[in-house]
Amino acid sequence: MTSSRDPKRPPVFISAPIAALVEGIYRADTTIGDVREKGDHGLGTFNDLDGELLMIDGTVYCLRPEGNAEIIGDDVKTPFAVATHFEGDTEEVFDRPLTAHEFEAQLHDLIPSKNLIYSIRIDGTFSAVRARSVPKQSNYVPLAEVAKVQTIFEFKDVEGSLVGFYTPTFLDSVHVPGFHLHFITADRKQGGHAMGVAPLSVRVRLQHAPSVELGLPLTLDFLTMERTRDIEADLDKVER
Amino acid sequence: MTSSRDPKRPPVFISAPIAALVEGIYRADTTIGDVREKGDHGLGTFNDLDGELLMIDGTVYCLRPEGNAEIIGDDVKTPFAVATHFEGDTEEVFDRPLTAHEFEAQLHDLIPSKNLIYSIRIDGTFSAVRARSVPKQSNYVPLAEVAKVQTIFEFKDVEGSLVGFYTPTFLDSVHVPGFHLHFITADRKQGGHAMGVAPLSVRVRLQHAPSVELGLPLTLDFLTMERTRDIEADLDKVER
Repeated sequence: MTSSRDPKRPPVFISAPIAALVEGIYRADTTIGDVREKGDHGLGTFNDLDGELLMIDGTVYCLRPEGNAEIIGDDVKTPFAVATHFEGDTEEVFDRPLTAHEFEAQLHDLIPSKNLIYSIRIDGTFSAVRARSVPKQSNYVPLAEVAKVQTIFEFKDVEGSLVGFYTPTFLDSVHVPGFHLHFITADRKQGGHAMGVAPLSVRVRLQHAPSVELGLPLTLDFLTMERTRDIEADLDKVER
Repeated sequence: MTSSRDPKRPPVFISAPIAALVEGIYRADTTIGDVREKGDHGLGTFNDLDGELLMIDGTVYCLRPEGNAEIIGDDVKTPFAVATHFEGDTEEVFDRPLTAHEFEAQLHDLIPSKNLIYSIRIDGTFSAVRARSVPKQSNYVPLAEVAKVQTIFEFKDVEGSLVGFYTPTFLDSVHVPGFHLHFITADRKQGGHAMGVAPLSVRVRLQHAPSVELGLPLTLDFLTMERTRDIEADLDKVER
């Protein structure tokens, strides 16, 4: 494991508190262009939950309910996105097959302190990647209920990348606590929100952030939001 | 009320999540110089809780347990500080005497949305300002217990300024939710953490922030912090 500490390293940008998404605020004025100004690595969703967002090497993809990936332009909007400039300050190679459960435990062991936020990239081959996406919402449904209409698909013996973050529990109203990873295949044609990944041979890179830049949207929906949901319970339903 | 919206307005900088202070992390490596780079308006405390911190017009004061104010140099360190560049985008004048209870209700009415973070400055004359400070802690005591050794003092018929912030409840692990204000007299000789203020004639200025910049300290204490406290209950004991 190598480490280089640079006090000038970039923050993790979070366009809006996840609490707003949990309350059903599915639209904001943040554009993909705004998100790309904050980094080249990220995840999130699009207005009306129109697919899962993944940004890798500066390109933003929408991962559709059928599992297809599509490049998205800078003018499309997002109610929730997380981004950073990613280089990786530690690197670990796992070169034997692991179950999804074993791999998750190994990832937890890689986190030096559970009180920092980390950007994570995992590249390699997988025996199985279980992923999901959600269809565009035309009516208001609480986020916890959207889980009922999500599509779940599985990639077998696949090469690809996971992009995401680890967030401390004390920031659970800001971003999903623990690991949050989105997957895209090496040919950039398919992917989704990762629900369990079993690696064959992968390289895991981590980068800790010295700070979080949290946006507070000036949309009427956000400004008038009333808090009615249990964030922790709802995120458990939709993200796990 | 006047309002000017500038998308380039500065973020509110928070040097560390208040959750860490609640857990008894009373030291960090953030210097007053670091805080002054983030703004000219702020509050917080010093390492070992050695007095209350107030920054006004770019000068940082320590408000001591006896209520005395002292200018603090850039090399002193803080485990928790909040700062922004303050100009004020709305202004309201209250020119009749109000009780502390009435004034707090009026301040709540001034907040356009309880989901944004606001910087607040209040200048004028007060019939009474109830304030407190805390003595330097030489041993670890949970923050909720420190309330037992705080000193409380009252200024009567005093001219001065309140400096502080309003924070949404969904950021309660990041900063004290609701109003958090520190007081300093017009001659800059005395002050403390405000616990209740009854104004005679004051000017209230608010400034909303488009984003929060939250620092995550790289100290060993923070990295190894275990969460054992009830943040909401503990902050209620110590800040109210």
